[in-house]
Amino acid sequence: MKRLNFVLLLIFSFVLANAQKLMGFSDADAAKQIDWEKQFDAQLNAQNLDTWLQFLSSHPHHVGSPQDKANAEYMSNLFRSWGYQTEIASYYVLFPTPKSRLLELIGSKPYKAKLVETGVKEDKTTNQLSEQLPTYNAYSADGDVTAELVFVNRGIPADYEELERMGVDVKGKIVIAKYGGSWRGIKPKVAYEHGAIGCIIYSDPEDDGYTQGDVYPEGPFRRGDGVQRGSVMDMPVYPGDPLTPDIGATKDAKRLDRKDATTIMKIPVLPISYEDALPFLQSLGGQVVPAAWRGSLPITYHVGPSKEKVHIKLEFNWDQKQLYDVIAKMPGSEFPDEWVIRGNHHDGWVNGASDPLGGMIAELEEARVVGELAKKGFRPKRTLVYCAWDGEEPALLGSTEWVEDHQQELKQKAVAYINSDGNGRGFIGASGSHTLETFFNEITNDVTDPQTGVTIKERKYANTVVNADKTARSKLIGNKYIKLGALGAGSDYSPFLQHLGIASMNLGFGGENQGGEYHSIYDSYDLFVKFKDPGFQYGVALSKTAGRVTMRLADADVLPFDFSTFYKTVNDYTAELKTLLETTRAETETENKIIKEKLYDLAKDPKKQYKSPSVKEAVPFLNFSNLENALAQLKESTEEFQKLYSKASQMAPAKQKELNDVLYKAERSLINSNGLPRRSWFKHEIYAPGYYTGYGVKTLPGIREGIEQRNWTEAQENIEIVAKALQLYNEQVKQAIVLLK
Amino acid sequence: MKRLNFVLLLIFSFVLANAQKLMGFSDADAAKQIDWEKQFDAQLNAQNLDTWLQFLSSHPHHVGSPQDKANAEYMSNLFRSWGYQTEIASYYVLFPTPKSRLLELIGSKPYKAKLVETGVKEDKTTNQLSEQLPTYNAYSADGDVTAELVFVNRGIPADYEELERMGVDVKGKIVIAKYGGSWRGIKPKVAYEHGAIGCIIYSDPEDDGYTQGDVYPEGPFRRGDGVQRGSVMDMPVYPGDPLTPDIGATKDAKRLDRKDATTIMKIPVLPISYEDALPFLQSLGGQVVPAAWRGSLPITYHVGPSKEKVHIKLEFNWDQKQLYDVIAKMPGSEFPDEWVIRGNHHDGWVNGASDPLGGMIAELEEARVVGELAKKGFRPKRTLVYCAWDGEEPALLGSTEWVEDHQQELKQKAVAYINSDGNGRGFIGASGSHTLETFFNEITNDVTDPQTGVTIKERKYANTVVNADKTARSKLIGNKYIKLGALGAGSDYSPFLQHLGIASMNLGFGGENQGGEYHSIYDSYDLFVKFKDPGFQYGVALSKTAGRVTMRLADADVLPFDFSTFYKTVNDYTAELKTLLETTRAETETENKIIKEKLYDLAKDPKKQYKSPSVKEAVPFLNFSNLENALAQLKESTEEFQKLYSKASQMAPAKQKELNDVLYKAERSLINSNGLPRRSWFKHEIYAPGYYTGYGVKTLPGIREGIEQRNWTEAQENIEIVAKALQLYNEQVKQAIVLLK
Repeated sequence: MKRLNFVLLLIFSFVLANAQKLMGFSDADAAKQIDWEKQFDAQLNAQNLDTWLQFLSSHPHHVGSPQDKANAEYMSNLFRSWGYQTEIASYYVLFPTPKSRLLELIGSKPYKAKLVETGVKEDKTTNQLSEQLPTYNAYSADGDVTAELVFVNRGIPADYEELERMGVDVKGKIVIAKYGGSWRGIKPKVAYEHGAIGCIIYSDPEDDGYTQGDVYPEGPFRRGDGVQRGSVMDMPVYPGDPLTPDIGATKDAKRLDRKDATTIMKIPVLPISYEDALPFLQSLGGQVVPAAWRGSLPITYHVGPSKEKVHIKLEFNWDQKQLYDVIAKMPGSEFPDEWVIRGNHHDGWVNGASDPLGGMIAELEEARVVGELAKKGFRPKRTLVYCAWDGEEPALLGSTEWVEDHQQELKQKAVAYINSDGNGRGFIGASGSHTLETFFNEITNDVTDPQTGVTIKERKYANTVVNADKTARSKLIGNKYIKLGALGAGSDYSPFLQHLGIASMNLGFGGENQGGEYHSIYDSYDLFVKFKDPGFQYGVALSKTAGRVTMRLADADVLPFDFSTFYKTVNDYTAELKTLLETTRAETETENKIIKEKLYDLAKDPKKQYKSPSVKEAVPFLNFSNLENALAQLKESTEEFQKLYSKASQMAPAKQKELNDVLYKAERSLINSNGLPRRSWFKHEIYAPGYYTGYGVKTLPGIREGIEQRNWTEAQENIEIVAKALQLYNEQVKQAIVLLK
Repeated sequence: MKRLNFVLLLIFSFVLANAQKLMGFSDADAAKQIDWEKQFDAQLNAQNLDTWLQFLSSHPHHVGSPQDKANAEYMSNLFRSWGYQTEIASYYVLFPTPKSRLLELIGSKPYKAKLVETGVKEDKTTNQLSEQLPTYNAYSADGDVTAELVFVNRGIPADYEELERMGVDVKGKIVIAKYGGSWRGIKPKVAYEHGAIGCIIYSDPEDDGYTQGDVYPEGPFRRGDGVQRGSVMDMPVYPGDPLTPDIGATKDAKRLDRKDATTIMKIPVLPISYEDALPFLQSLGGQVVPAAWRGSLPITYHVGPSKEKVHIKLEFNWDQKQLYDVIAKMPGSEFPDEWVIRGNHHDGWVNGASDPLGGMIAELEEARVVGELAKKGFRPKRTLVYCAWDGEEPALLGSTEWVEDHQQELKQKAVAYINSDGNGRGFIGASGSHTLETFFNEITNDVTDPQTGVTIKERKYANTVVNADKTARSKLIGNKYIKLGALGAGSDYSPFLQHLGIASMNLGFGGENQGGEYHSIYDSYDLFVKFKDPGFQYGVALSKTAGRVTMRLADADVLPFDFSTFYKTVNDYTAELKTLLETTRAETETENKIIKEKLYDLAKDPKKQYKSPSVKEAVPFLNFSNLENALAQLKESTEEFQKLYSKASQMAPAKQKELNDVLYKAERSLINSNGLPRRSWFKHEIYAPGYYTGYGVKTLPGIREGIEQRNWTEAQENIEIVAKALQLYNEQVKQAIVLLK
């Protein structure tokens, strides 16, 4: 061999050995893909995000508003101009808006709540009063009630247990709850369960007001008159149009009577500002609240009841409104019947610059550049579906109705759903189906953090280590792996994941974009560019991140699903549940001893009303064996699958197609057609929003909520159900192994 | 044996077997003692406490006030009338009072601090304005300074580390600190060490104002204009008259020049109310404070510096004042040269109903009934010395000067010192020398909680279990033993314990007597009877508890000291220190890795000023072997001693006297005549107030502060010093064993 040849060979070997691998791509395809991604990055333009944000947030764009429709048309025109097959899918949903709102304290120191957010001169859109939705909670009941007031902290079940010990009953009373600690709809739901006849929810300054930082316009935090609008529909039962559960709310769909819609709140609910809350809180007598219940208004917080009565009168227009979902498709070059779906909602409560447009504009720019690349020859194998959902704010309306409407097709075709929503400066946040975790980690090595120049994975890792407990830090050092969070509720992935079993992800940057503008008139363009993502750098970073997820999923030879991460995660959840059961057992035993020794009676302050808790039923042992056996089998097959997976990108295309079909449909086997106890719409056996937390996820929800609610029979039944789901899942994995061998 | 005799024998055996044992008493003496205690309990009369509190709190009674002297005379008359040999011991001390006070914010929004607490009509003594000491910090420097303001949270060293990371320097600035988190004198001391030229301390409503509960007169918490007076002398260096360290401040004592007194603050310091603090805090610019630094005023807290300047001008009358210590003795019937000393201070900052009179009135009633019993034939073997100290508030002046003045006699004669101070409704709190722990536990079985009817030990246990972490509860169930806290500083036990090595205890009830009246004009009779101890039930409970401690110590055949509890406690402290060293090593390693990986740089928000910390010196291994060997020997001998101890009450009286001498002088061997590093007045090797915490105790202080300050040489030196002290202590234990054999 000549010396030169030898050197060339060396160089060639070096290049080959060091060529970047991409999960699911052959080396040759990976090199091409990486090249397209470089072009993709280069063409992303922050100026576009700015332009779109200015237009889309220029007027209030809630469901039913002229700007909502205008935005849908604006975006559909954009998608179309970029080469997508674009349509606006319309649904017709129940969307109540206020007809009249009254909240007053009556008696010796009367006060009538203002219920108005005032515009600031520094912010041009905050003064569009006539176009703004008033401050209200959508799907509150109509009502006219007068009663004493009780402060219920966050209004979650544990708070009512504490109130009971303090001898305070909310029956026939109006409750006032702080925002936070649960999804807002939980508060009136639990209040109603305890007999309350009305519910006020307010934003305590401790949570997103002056306590956190300077208020708008000096800083991004909530002003004294800022109000968090929002839905209180009972979405942990089912999201979407309350009148058309399980089916698309098309024009002619069969609808329930409104009185039969179980997700509409049964009592009047109204959100207020902390300035409006102050006189009501000051009217409260009774005991001083437990320390953990305090807010940061300059008062002593009492539980009540109030000395004076409170009057709430609410009337709504129970109208049907038209939704405008923008659906833009680019058919796959090889597998047009495999869909990679990317979505963000476009409706806001008011001008919605951050929520939802912070994520929407990143999706638009991603779609624009993909369109550009397509013109230059980038034709992904699978169909790309870019969506801009309407009506997310009231109840995930647009996404849920579209998913319900297209459920048969989606069950067949949907490979994955990638969601985003608000977005801002900071660190990557990612939750999703755990089959996608390895794939996502690979992507975070390839996106650069705009402020520091390291990868977004490195920056996330630095943040995790630095902010960890001193005791936890040493274990975290060196471990840069990003564990995906589990998806609960709160954005449009719910119908995809939890109703149909489509592997899903939710992506966004944040942590340096705190504020108190959420669902208020102050969530504006001016606030966004000053405090959320100046220069739109993190919008572009989201385009790069979600764009890579979408493009690689769409163009991979073999879909980048990792079953072993799924196994490990579910195995961890199971271990957690066993620990939860053991902890509950030990704590119950201890608690019962304490009660029987009368220690609560002896420790309490005799000058304060306090009812010691009662002895609880002992916690039985549950039989986890079927679940554990299913996991053991899953461990074996997922390990075997992962060993064989690297061969897959070398397989014949037809075989690959067969394999891909198995891969993306595996998640479907986690769907139980009967659904979860008491909420059949939620069918996923691994992830669900908590029945009593709303946003917060409950993993292995049937079992976990059974244990938490001390419903041991239900917990045992659900162990068997999950075990069966995992057996079905395992069949899919085994089928994949057969194809790989 | 006849049947009747048999029955009688059975009854007699039963009575004997079930007769209550008392530590240090023969069975016969125990029975007598218990009988006296029954009479003692029966004669305690809550009405007396009420009468005395009314008189003693009727006018402000700070050092130098007419009522201070009148109270001393009133009490000395009482003691005398009860049969005590009573004297008023006077000392002459430096006690500064304000000549002029000015605090203002200058510039565009000028504000002059009011510096006045306003009387309330519901409380008769709050309006005695002309007699009240103005709000001030005693032993502040005179000064007239103008500078920008910086918020330093609690003003402890860790806060300045955080400020440095935020890029904020206090050099040449005035600082404003929240009360709490350390003894108040630490705040100006640390501010001065960092170059500040003035210090404001304010009471944030989060700590004892409206956040905690209703403010006075609706509730007991601090009003908007309430101010915490208090001393800022550098008492962790030495307490007592700053001009006469180590010696009694008699009329003719040799005095230091004021400029040479190291314990007087070097910068002007002023305490203010939260109403006065508000404009100053609002003037602060700069970054928003870390979350843990927030208070609960309705503002966004910033670190500063302020946009405007702050002006403090303080002038004091640096006068000498006369102290009036009341010393009342009842000579012992058998061992008049063994003294059991019981004390409480009588001076207050203003009317001082709770602090100090809550404890003082309990001591008076205890002494009264002991006097009554004495008339009926109860003559304790040892001398009882009842003390009412003057000048505790400025600097433990009365107790320290008396102890320094009588140090030779006290070293010989003092068996123990039993202290109390404020007192109120709730649970027994007890700290002290661990040789007294077993003895004290015995006593808590014999005193009934007035609200629940169970023993004070049972109630304390119930409170401990109920309020423990869920994870800790199961371990606490069944363990009713009361572990004594270690004594730091904060009341008159310091000179006895930490200067002379006299075994000491501090006792008081509390936990249901919260309030914000501390060191303000609102610490009044009216507040006390409404919120602190209505009906004086816990005053009587304190008389019963401290009375038993005093009487049993005074009358025991053999002193009830338990060396094994001392050993166990010091062994635990040593284990703690080894863990502290290991934890510090591990955390330093982790922190250094984080710094070297630049994770702080990557995690920080680039839009905020933030300096990443610097690499720290690695933590060396220290040689604990001499200390561990000393502990091993101590373990062996204390175990042997405890086995033999039960014999002691059967020993001949002369032998008992010899043994008692060894027992109570054992604590003296823990005294190191050179004192602790940088503060020779503090000579106890086991307990000291923290140099940078003030109240908070540091156990094994020489070693612990060496490790905390990362002064490894000093830590190692102090390991050897403590080892030697324990060897000397062990010699005492061995001598006791010889006597017992």
